[in-house]
Parts: sequence; structure tokens; C-alpha cells
Amino acid sequence: MVETLAQGSVIGILGGGQLGRMLAVAASRLGFKTCIFEPGGDCPASHVSNYHFQKPYDDEDALRAFAEAVDVITYEFENIPTSALDILEPLKPVRPGRNALRVSQDRLVEKAFLSDLGLKTAPFAAVDEAEDLAEGLSEIGFPAILKTRRFGYDGKGQARINAASEAEAALEDMAGQPAILEGFVNFSHEVSVIGARGLDGSVACFDPGENVHEGGILRTTTVPARLSTKQRTDAVLLAGQILNKLDYVGVMGVELFVTEAGLVVNEIAPRVHNSGHWTQQGCTIDQFEQHIRAVAGWPLGDGGRYADVVMENLIGDDMDKVPAIAREAGAALHLYGKAEVKPGRKMGHVNRVVPARQS
Amino acid sequence: MVETLAQGSVIGILGGGQLGRMLAVAASRLGFKTCIFEPGGDCPASHVSNYHFQKPYDDEDALRAFAEAVDVITYEFENIPTSALDILEPLKPVRPGRNALRVSQDRLVEKAFLSDLGLKTAPFAAVDEAEDLAEGLSEIGFPAILKTRRFGYDGKGQARINAASEAEAALEDMAGQPAILEGFVNFSHEVSVIGARGLDGSVACFDPGENVHEGGILRTTTVPARLSTKQRTDAVLLAGQILNKLDYVGVMGVELFVTEAGLVVNEIAPRVHNSGHWTQQGCTIDQFEQHIRAVAGWPLGDGGRYADVVMENLIGDDMDKVPAIAREAGAALHLYGKAEVKPGRKMGHVNRVVPARQS
Repeated sequence: MVETLAQGSVIGILGGGQLGRMLAVAASRLGFKTCIFEPGGDCPASHVSNYHFQKPYDDEDALRAFAEAVDVITYEFENIPTSALDILEPLKPVRPGRNALRVSQDRLVEKAFLSDLGLKTAPFAAVDEAEDLAEGLSEIGFPAILKTRRFGYDGKGQARINAASEAEAALEDMAGQPAILEGFVNFSHEVSVIGARGLDGSVACFDPGENVHEGGILRTTTVPARLSTKQRTDAVLLAGQILNKLDYVGVMGVELFVTEAGLVVNEIAPRVHNSGHWTQQGCTIDQFEQHIRAVAGWPLGDGGRYADVVMENLIGDDMDKVPAIAREAGAALHLYGKAEVKPGRKMGHVNRVVPARQS
Repeated sequence: MVETLAQGSVIGILGGGQLGRMLAVAASRLGFKTCIFEPGGDCPASHVSNYHFQKPYDDEDALRAFAEAVDVITYEFENIPTSALDILEPLKPVRPGRNALRVSQDRLVEKAFLSDLGLKTAPFAAVDEAEDLAEGLSEIGFPAILKTRRFGYDGKGQARINAASEAEAALEDMAGQPAILEGFVNFSHEVSVIGARGLDGSVACFDPGENVHEGGILRTTTVPARLSTKQRTDAVLLAGQILNKLDYVGVMGVELFVTEAGLVVNEIAPRVHNSGHWTQQGCTIDQFEQHIRAVAGWPLGDGGRYADVVMENLIGDDMDKVPAIAREAGAALHLYGKAEVKPGRKMGHVNRVVPARQS
């Protein structure tokens, strides 16, 4: 028998960005309170939460007080310091668990985990020094991409290598951090599956979405994705495999390359995912509520898709488009309440239901 | 040119119940912050708001500080004391304006306002003393219902009179407050229109819903309502008339009786309305966001209905049904985070999309 979180319980969320914000709103729908742990002030999640610990992740007393104040702990980003988990884990359940973080925090560990499951990934090689890089390039060929093993997102900490002459500069870009060399995958398009696994072990996946990136940042996700029935089934099955293997609790994003030889796993994210924002307008239960349901021990909800949706991120100056979008039929805006517009900063998104439906 | 509230502006909400809670969530979607003024602690709206003034409505200093802290003021209930408005109005815009409150706070003023607009209402008579009551009963006949003119909701402050012998007791129930005698309307069913008017004067109405009450409390709202095309048009036109006449800004609930002789206005509520909760699952823009858009000077959003929905209130012990509802396909739960379950207390609601749609 799975223990279900009672009404009025407090869900602790590590990280106070837009994902935490939308998780907090979903938690409120189910009658839960939320407590954010986030070093930054005036963070998006704090606007819709009961409590905000504005403390750094290495403040051990604050972490203990946070664990004391909540009933279960989850997070909106995967780069939680291990030292923080060491303090939190003995005090309150952390969901998804450490194994998911261990795997997803390190690109090399992640690729090895996926390969061991029998899933296809890009060719890869560990790179700690110049010799490894030369060896990796001889195996993988050009172009290849060198990435830090840890703490990379949205295209940061990555260097493309088109020829042997560029290897040295790429390695310097890593600033001495352990790295991974990855080959390019010849794919037609990218899709992602947002999967969920409940505390009772049940698994449910949202319909895969098709992603378009610009400058390493997600631009749009479109459902339905261009996938054959077989590919669709494969996508869901491999997400289920990953979730089960990790004994996962919560929502996970799995990015996939669609190739002639089948689906290749690009990366996994142990959290709600930007490519799952369309579920807010396309499903009865969106990815945020699904995640809260899982970490609260509730049954997973009805994530069946009932509409075609295009999600578009509003990045930096895209905010100038908001007045026009506000007048569009079938357009649902989600703005994150960030005080300052910066280039490359995710300021909000819009879900366009296509075609706009009329009563 | 209408002045639009900038990102990060603060919307002040008088009242901290579930309507304030869902308004605060809608405000967050548009990048606004919220500040609740509510005497009660741990109120539903405070869980998802930035600030909470936990002060009584007659605390003048607190009201001034509240007005200082916000950019615009709205409310989730119509019984705002006039003395509080006297303080707030000169400091910040209050939307909807005082005229709407003046009309809806007093059943007699409301009925007279509607009659003057040429709209049908139940027959009514002012009752200040026994003589008025006798005269009213002779005009209206039996059964009739005596209600306090002010501060009644969910069936409180009302006494049914089936015969002359019951008149005295009914008047005593009013405890000396000014009252109104109303005749019964022979209606087949009740519907309500949730209408909205923007700061620019544009009007938009949601599709009417059909309401079922139990014990004076709303039990379910179903869309579409049983209405002919002509009735549907009439309903929307009369709501527009009311909104325009009041120079209204925001969302209003208009309850209507459906009779053979046409639509009879039961009452109006100058706020988001329980019978409009279905819009959360049936429309791109729900009543809460529509209200925030209006008071923030934004254009009204696309409220077209794209699904059939049955909204059911979860009252008191209905909370015992939550675990079962959590497993239903097509059921979206909205729980209010109230600490204590009490008989008759609205604890949450469920929107059931009918039939449940599958991807």
C-alpha cells in the first residue's frame, strides 16, 4: 500500500524558476502547500508558493530547516549538489531519487546507463585529457562535439570540432573539467517523450512532441509529432524502460532523435521538461500535476491528448510579441514573472491550440 | 488608449477564499504578482500569492498600506464594506467599480436596476416592517420568500412563506434588517452566463451553463445548457446590457431562470462565479484569467468553449470521494487547501470533460 500525502501537506521544491512555479501551481490544485528552496530572490516560483528559503545550496542549517518544514522533496533542475542531497535524504523522501540524479548529472554516466539498457545513443568517448580526445576523434570522426560531463544545459559548455585542428581549442573550452566526446547523429527530427512513474510503479507517458531548437535552446514543441505508429510505441516503451530501471518517481523528459535506423536517445532530464509545456493546453492532467501526483503518492492522472498544440518559447525580446499574442484566438500565454528581460532568457511560453476551436 | 498593467505589477485582491486563490493563479500565468487582503489566516488565496495582509476590513492603516503595495484592486466577494472602498478608491483603481458593488450588495437595488433595464425579474417588494410584508404578500401571493436586502449568500438570511400565518416568524428571522419579499418564478431550470467587459469596453461572454442547486448551494454546472438558439442569444445580450450599463470592468456572473415567457434574471454577482469554474477545462482562457485580463487592461481572451464539461462542487464530506475521482479519466480536480472539512463548506470542485477524450 502506497502512502498518499494528506491535504495541506507541504511539498518542498529545490529550485525557484519557471518549472518550480508551474509545479507550485499544480500542487495548489491538489490542495498542497509548497516551499521553495532557491538562493535567488524574487524568483518565479516564490510568487505562487507558501514559503521561500532564500539560501545557498551549501547552507546546511537552511537545508535541514527546509527538510523539517516539508513532507516530501522534489526539484526542478538536475544539478542539485550531492552535498545537499546527503543532508536532505535522511530527513525526508527525495523524489525522484538520487539514482536518477546520479545518472543525469553526468553525460558519460548517462550514456553508459542508456547503452547498458540496450538503447541507442550517439557514439561517445570519455575525455579527460588531450590523448583521450585524439583517440575519441579517431573512433568517432568529424564533426564531433565535446561537452563537459556535468552542469551543461541550453548549449553551454559545448564545443563543436569540425577538424583535428580545432581539437585543442575545444579542450581548452572545457576549462579542465572532465568531458565527453559525442558523435553527431544523422537524424530527421527530434522528439521527446514526457514519461511519469508513480510511487506504486505504474507508468504513463504523454504523447511524444516534436522539438525545434534554435541556438541550442528549445524554440517550439509540436504535437502530434511526425512518428509512425511503431516509432510512437517504441518511444513510449523505451521511456518506460528507463523509468523502471531507475525505480523512478515523478516526471522525466526523454529527448529522442528520429533516424532511419530507429530512435536514438539524446538525453534524459529527471524533471518536468520544457518540451512538455504543451500538456497544459492539450491534456486534462498536465506534466506538472502528473509530477506532483507521483511525488505525493497519488495515482497518475489522465494524460491523454485531446488537442493539437504548438508550444512556442518566449525568449528575451520575444516578450515584445505578448500584446499581439494576447489577442490571438486559441493562444494560451504562460509568463514567468521574471523581472528582467535578457537575451536567451526564457521569459514565458505560448500554447497555441491548432486549429483554434470555437464553441 | 487603454493603460495596460506592466509585467510584474501587483494585483490586490480583497478576500482570500477559493475564488481569490484561482484569481491569483491566473494572475501568475500573465506574469503578475498578487497581494491578498483577508482577515483570516492560512486562507486558500494566500498559498499562491506574494503578499497577505491579514487584517480586518475596518483597519484603515492596513487598507492604506495595501493600496500602496498594489497597482490595481479587485475582489472575490461582493460584500466589501463601503468604508473600505472609501479608503481604497482614491488611492488605486478598484475594478469592477463601486457602482457594481452598490447594485449587487442590495437585493432591492439590484432588482430595481434590472427592472429599469427592461429585464424580467421575480416580482418583488421592499419590506421594512410588518405592514410592508402584508402588502407585499397580497400583491405577490404564496409561496413567497423573504430575504435580507444585504449580505446573504448560499441560502442564508432567507425565509420561505407558504401562508399568512408564517409571515411573522419570517420577519423575525430578518432580525430587524431591511428585507425584500420575492415571488417564486415558475422556471424549468436555471442557467448562468459568465460575462466579461474589458477596460476598453469590449464585451465577451462564456457559453451559458446549467446549474443544479442542493440546499441553496450550487451542486453542478453543466455545459452546454439546455437552451434554444434564441435563448442563448438572449442570455448573452442581457448580460452585455448589464455590463455596459454598469460601465463594468471584469467578470460577472448572471443567474437566469428559464421560463416559458423567456429568461428571468435571478441575481448578478460582480465577480468570478462558482458556475463558471467549468471554463478551466472547457476554454483556452478561463473566467479567472478573463477577469485578470480585464482588471489589468489587457484585451479579453478567447473564451470559446471547446468541450462539454460537468462541474461538480465538492462540499464537506464529498472530500471522501477524492481518491476515487483522482483515478477517473477526464476528471480535473481543483482543491482549495482548506485546513478543516465542515458540512456545507466548499472544499473543491471537479471538472469532468464529457465524454473523456483520448489521444
